[in-house]
Amino acid sequence: MNSYPPPNHEHIDEQMVKMEVNLDDIPGEWLGYVMDILFEAGANDVFYTPIYMKKNRPGVLLQLLCHKNNMDQMKEILLKETTTLGIRYFPITVHRMERKFIKVETKWGAITVKQGINDGEVFQSSPEYEECKAIAKRHNVPLKKVYEQVWQALAKGK
Amino acid sequence: MNSYPPPNHEHIDEQMVKMEVNLDDIPGEWLGYVMDILFEAGANDVFYTPIYMKKNRPGVLLQLLCHKNNMDQMKEILLKETTTLGIRYFPITVHRMERKFIKVETKWGAITVKQGINDGEVFQSSPEYEECKAIAKRHNVPLKKVYEQVWQALAKGK
Amino acid sequence: MNSYPPPNHEHIDEQMVKMEVNLDDIPGEWLGYVMDILFEAGANDVFYTPIYMKKNRPGVLLQLLCHKNNMDQMKEILLKETTTLGIRYFPITVHRMERKFIKVETKWGAITVKQGINDGEVFQSSPEYEECKAIAKRHNVPLKKVYEQVWQALAKGK
Amino acid sequence: MNSYPPPNHEHIDEQMVKMEVNLDDIPGEWLGYVMDILFEAGANDVFYTPIYMKKNRPGVLLQLLCHKNNMDQMKEILLKETTTLGIRYFPITVHRMERKFIKVETKWGAITVKQGINDGEVFQSSPEYEECKAIAKRHNVPLKKVYEQVWQALAKGK
Amino acid sequence: MNSYPPPNHEHIDEQMVKMEVNLDDIPGEWLGYVMDILFEAGANDVFYTPIYMKKNRPGVLLQLLCHKNNMDQMKEILLKETTTLGIRYFPITVHRMERKFIKVETKWGAITVKQGINDGEVFQSSPEYEECKAIAKRHNVPLKKVYEQVWQALAKGK
Amino acid sequence: MNSYPPPNHEHIDEQMVKMEVNLDDIPGEWLGYVMDILFEAGANDVFYTPIYMKKNRPGVLLQLLCHKNNMDQMKEILLKETTTLGIRYFPITVHRMERKFIKVETKWGAITVKQGINDGEVFQSSPEYEECKAIAKRHNVPLKKVYEQVWQALAKGK
Repeated sequence: MNSYPPPNHEHIDEQMVKMEVNLDDIPGEWLGYVMDILFEAGANDVFYTPIYMKKNRPGVLLQLLCHKNNMDQMKEILLKETTTLGIRYFPITVHRMERKFIKVETKWGAITVKQGINDGEVFQSSPEYEECKAIAKRHNVPLKKVYEQVWQALAKGK
Repeated sequence: MNSYPPPNHEHIDEQMVKMEVNLDDIPGEWLGYVMDILFEAGANDVFYTPIYMKKNRPGVLLQLLCHKNNMDQMKEILLKETTTLGIRYFPITVHRMERKFIKVETKWGAITVKQGINDGEVFQSSPEYEECKAIAKRHNVPLKKVYEQVWQALAKGK
Repeated sequence: MNSYPPPNHEHIDEQMVKMEVNLDDIPGEWLGYVMDILFEAGANDVFYTPIYMKKNRPGVLLQLLCHKNNMDQMKEILLKETTTLGIRYFPITVHRMERKFIKVETKWGAITVKQGINDGEVFQSSPEYEECKAIAKRHNVPLKKVYEQVWQALAKGK
Repeated sequence: MNSYPPPNHEHIDEQMVKMEVNLDDIPGEWLGYVMDILFEAGANDVFYTPIYMKKNRPGVLLQLLCHKNNMDQMKEILLKETTTLGIRYFPITVHRMERKFIKVETKWGAITVKQGINDGEVFQSSPEYEECKAIAKRHNVPLKKVYEQVWQALAKGK
Repeated sequence: MNSYPPPNHEHIDEQMVKMEVNLDDIPGEWLGYVMDILFEAGANDVFYTPIYMKKNRPGVLLQLLCHKNNMDQMKEILLKETTTLGIRYFPITVHRMERKFIKVETKWGAITVKQGINDGEVFQSSPEYEECKAIAKRHNVPLKKVYEQVWQALAKGK
Repeated sequence: MNSYPPPNHEHIDEQMVKMEVNLDDIPGEWLGYVMDILFEAGANDVFYTPIYMKKNRPGVLLQLLCHKNNMDQMKEILLKETTTLGIRYFPITVHRMERKFIKVETKWGAITVKQGINDGEVFQSSPEYEECKAIAKRHNVPLKKVYEQVWQALAKGK
């Protein structure tokens, strides 16, 4: 289990922007697409919440997180790809842990684990989903088993 | 506090039908309308649940309860007013309490209370929402206060 | 298809207030009423989100958007009509598109379409729900068909 | 706008099975994968609902629809890929509309539209999402515009 | 890591009953209590789903699973402790895995792990939540760490 | 019905902090525990919302409200007890009503009622849930009946 890229000293407690849009006149089908487009354009996070809107309408609250200088691009996508007539936003601070990537060995090959580090202490160890998924598919094993092997390898490394 | 219409001896443990539709390509705006139309056409209940569908789509599960001989009309409305290509259904038994309607006096006038009765015992006493709302509007008092007066009148009547 | 009222040059990127209340001791029945009352009193938007509160309680998060000088009235309604003991709020900026209203012809008569305009470009064209609904009811046609006719008329007008 | 494959006379009002699993000890990350695996294995539909479980746990209700002779395979996937200790199921009838696929022309090329037909009448016309998405990506236009063009072409064809 | 009680050969594919109640006039506060009472009275599962009901009401769908001969007790609790005027139910089959309880050693003492077994194969290994929680509290360690130790012990035992 | 402790003149319109975490790789089981731990450590409120995250993942948005000087402790718990790699936060103002506690008599003994007071007017009267629950359990009566008696006693006291 070796250190993989050097620790990534991100800025911590960064200023970002949360944008919000309420949607009650768009098919859900389009919203799956909108999420992808926003991530591709650099949104740091995008997520939906089911909401109850006026006139008995099941709606969706779209929330996204981005950097201030990315706001115009986000606005443009929201105007073009959704049906909204308005966009709300407010500043939000993000405390982001340092991330470090390590490799652990499983019987199906090495898998990257993203570690979350705060003040030098490792708090999180998340196996990379896409790599685990690729192995699960290739070797026809449950995804659950792949994660278990990674956790086991992490435990042995301690 | 007098007995209003005579107790309503409904059939208990009745056979009914639950119908279900998954929707991911309809605007929420239409769904508010669809609910009204279904109730008007005799649905015994209609409600929506937010669901997570394939391809990251926030969808809506429409569920409705109706009598077997009302199914064709419900199907027709669902085909005409929603975007679905299929409708699921299964039999469901409903244990319905007997209902009795009484009148209680408040300082703003009499209000109907729907009582739920099982084996002769009163389990529920629900002030009629529309009447409470009308009084709240007419007298410019909080709806909460209207309900409180009804509960108080019910308590005194015991 | 003629321009109806002249474009409405609203202030863009306006300062507003988001207010929030967590509710776990109010019947859902009252919340339908509360939403109406808040809109009538000038809330710019009101919506509910299902939340998981302490002690296994399914609760509701009420969110509303209003102008700063409308806050006192909103607070008063929330105190009077809900069961809350506290109200949270924070400033939020709203980027609102210019709105223009046009009329399009359908076989059932003219219907208003609200257009959302940004930097002179039309991004949204939303048929007015209440007018479409009225026509659907009057002519006994699916709401879906009414919207389709409006979209068709908009397409021809291009 | 030509008829594409001949109408597909599916069996209507088919007997199927709804399976259900409550999950409170699985990461959401795995559930995205589980949905894909179930669809690939022939589930007719799979969707998630957020639920409130005991001990204040936000859980997920997995529901799937399949044919009776596909149940064993579904069970096996659920046991292998989720953390459940039990699976519920019950018979459910599905009224499925006949489907017909037509092609409509847009300025970016032909797009398939799936039509839902009941007793010879066309109730639904759904542009194929994947084709619209591919065009939106390739031509760098909003998905919304692609759908609009399809609706317009459908209207002209009438 | 020893086998703890002998495997529990439960009946598999058992006939049970699902009961459902829609609630729009009950405070969430009471529902936390109702869930506990139902579990204490022998419900096999109880869970809530947020639903959209008529007149813009955020409601709750209560679902419970019980044995047929437990239905009367469930009905009585639902009538007494909620505000419902009706209860729906239908038969449902439950495929329940065999359960076996094993003990694994951690540095804070032994912890029970519930195993889910199907046709002799172990599919699930769930550390007992209450025991992990008790250790987390007593030793002032994150619950996450306790689970990790259990998983590690399980891995070594293989 | 006597005044119990003297009115509690809390600071009104206080500055607080809302913290938010998106979670898609944690079992729901742990989240029940996390909520308790956060309350015990002094969070003023904690609640969960179901969200739709990327890659079809049903996730959970954890929101908490705390005082500025309690933030570090909250952060530490979130890092230790959840799987998050980041925490968002922003300032929020809380308008909190004055609270006064009174006692009312029921046939099962006295029960505390929390009153919410604004500018000297009583807006809310909430029976203390834990006391009502204890009486319901001890005397084997529905919780609903206990609340009804309290409301009745409050009405008589007016």
